[in-house]
Amino acid sequence: MPPRPPAEIGAPLAEIETPALVIDLDLFERNLAAMAEALAGSRVRLRPHGKAHKCPDIARRQMAAGAVGLCCQKVSEAEVFVAAGIPDVLVTNEVVDVRKLQRLADLSRTARIGLCVDGPAQVERLAQALAGRDAALYVLIEIDVGQGRCGMAVSPDIVSLATAIGRVPGLTFGGLQAYHGKAQHLREPEARRAAIADAVERARIAKAMLEGAGIPCPVISGAGTGTFRLELASGLYTELQAGSYALMDADYARNTLDGPIFAHALTLHATVISTAVPGQAVLDVGYKGAAVDSGPPVPVSPQAEVIGMSDEHTILRQPARKPLAVGDRVVLVPGHVDPTVNLHDWFVGVRDGHVEALWPISARGAGL
Amino acid sequence: MPPRPPAEIGAPLAEIETPALVIDLDLFERNLAAMAEALAGSRVRLRPHGKAHKCPDIARRQMAAGAVGLCCQKVSEAEVFVAAGIPDVLVTNEVVDVRKLQRLADLSRTARIGLCVDGPAQVERLAQALAGRDAALYVLIEIDVGQGRCGMAVSPDIVSLATAIGRVPGLTFGGLQAYHGKAQHLREPEARRAAIADAVERARIAKAMLEGAGIPCPVISGAGTGTFRLELASGLYTELQAGSYALMDADYARNTLDGPIFAHALTLHATVISTAVPGQAVLDVGYKGAAVDSGPPVPVSPQAEVIGMSDEHTILRQPARKPLAVGDRVVLVPGHVDPTVNLHDWFVGVRDGHVEALWPISARGAGL
Repeated sequence: MPPRPPAEIGAPLAEIETPALVIDLDLFERNLAAMAEALAGSRVRLRPHGKAHKCPDIARRQMAAGAVGLCCQKVSEAEVFVAAGIPDVLVTNEVVDVRKLQRLADLSRTARIGLCVDGPAQVERLAQALAGRDAALYVLIEIDVGQGRCGMAVSPDIVSLATAIGRVPGLTFGGLQAYHGKAQHLREPEARRAAIADAVERARIAKAMLEGAGIPCPVISGAGTGTFRLELASGLYTELQAGSYALMDADYARNTLDGPIFAHALTLHATVISTAVPGQAVLDVGYKGAAVDSGPPVPVSPQAEVIGMSDEHTILRQPARKPLAVGDRVVLVPGHVDPTVNLHDWFVGVRDGHVEALWPISARGAGL
Repeated sequence: MPPRPPAEIGAPLAEIETPALVIDLDLFERNLAAMAEALAGSRVRLRPHGKAHKCPDIARRQMAAGAVGLCCQKVSEAEVFVAAGIPDVLVTNEVVDVRKLQRLADLSRTARIGLCVDGPAQVERLAQALAGRDAALYVLIEIDVGQGRCGMAVSPDIVSLATAIGRVPGLTFGGLQAYHGKAQHLREPEARRAAIADAVERARIAKAMLEGAGIPCPVISGAGTGTFRLELASGLYTELQAGSYALMDADYARNTLDGPIFAHALTLHATVISTAVPGQAVLDVGYKGAAVDSGPPVPVSPQAEVIGMSDEHTILRQPARKPLAVGDRVVLVPGHVDPTVNLHDWFVGVRDGHVEALWPISARGAGL
């Protein structure tokens, strides 16, 4: 059981204990519908990234809105989603611990499970993990399409690796993981277009090499909220892995957009606990409730400037027009949705000013 | 129940699943002994900060090593420590939600409980929360001794507030909270000495004002790992709130020291999952397992340079002498202990190369 939730069903907004992650359910549903509409008429599938929300209740709603399955980054996340009934989960990451690979193999008896590799070492470990085990995993080869983190360079080595995958009992070569994470956060549309054009070109060549060697490449998976329209339009990608679109955050909002926007469905609610130091108001949330890797959370109601943060506090400059008082609520947009969500145990879903849903963030902290 | 621990008792180090927070028990015990020795012969009490570890198993060992009680920052943390049998807990923070104050009041029936205020608004809320409730809380007035976050300026208003506290049934005025957080991280001893000399002077004046009005001020509480020797030597502080000393982190190690050092008892163990991009090795931990507010975690075994981080990955420049391979272990010192611990559910205690203890981080995520 996760810790006590910060609200009760039916309570008005003002009674939510803080800090709390609050989802505006109307905006959330609108975001899911907007993504479904963007893909309507296309044969490209949506496989939303569960790392962004870690929440089976959201995953189920994404499946109901047309997703073919979920992505996640960790085996322990996949275990949470499969236990919650998600029938198809792709781990978009390299996994090298034999025990983790065995747990993934065991999951493949109740759900369709895939993972990524970017070299022979990982395939050898997969072979070791699967020896004598009843399992069926599909494997995507991750190629580096400009992210510069994991992923093979595009070369004939991809053909050798796909062949090696096909030789391991229980493994099927599934295609390519071609995710360009950095491109998501390039601010200008032109820069994103150039980055994804390059990614598409690399993936196209990798696919051609495989097909030239007689190896089918049915899946090319990648894309995020910042660029998915480009991968969608490429004619090459078969699956989109966008995750942030459902909830959004302040960092994505800094992109200059070239299409319909998604709404900030997720906010962080906080309370002023001190105004003793002149000119500032101190909130009851800090690094332990708001990730700062993409900057501090942004106060939107009321608008205010963050002038300091520490483990449990965020210091705001007092708004000139109407100074905040002890006990006042402040609503903030998280700087970066994924690591902020990972700090909380509950989403509080609200509609028409009242709490309608309490969704456990069941894969919170699932790092193994 | 927290998620599955990353190791089994008795397992060798290499079998700990990663990412994992590992405590070297010899170093941890040496740190507790070093703090006890630093305070030996003094009448100053140790009240270690539980916000740093959030772990009842550590709290109990700190009590056994002479602590009079624990500090924490949140009511939900206090609930965890009291439930685990800690008999004396001070919330070193302002609490303004009446329901939270009532929970704190309820705790005061099984443990000695204190909290901080820095203005009349919080005392009014306390009066509202305690009305008709069987409770006994002691209240410290937080004064701003240079931190510039919460805390009243030193003035006769402190006397009025102490008087107001004394009039609320169930409340006792306990003394002053005089913590200078910023001073902990000033790099040079001279700068820390100057900051704490100023803090001591402010606290001394506040105490004199109270005593001049006939109000005893039995407690002056504050100090952290970076400065506690200065508060200890002040002759004024009665309680030290150091927390990081037990585990330590990379940020504290950046201080130029003027006394015996504490050892890095806490490390983050990670595994190389990819070396596909030339010149780099990618670890299986990122923002979701290592807080970055004080910089990235520092690889110490082997020594290596962090050249990138994202939600689930840390990218190292390949060490020139002996490149890392897929599956290799890397040991890192967290940049900042408190928010890093808050990302994990377990401490893995090791001695002589084997897992000796698994300690749940029971107050992980306790933000209410």
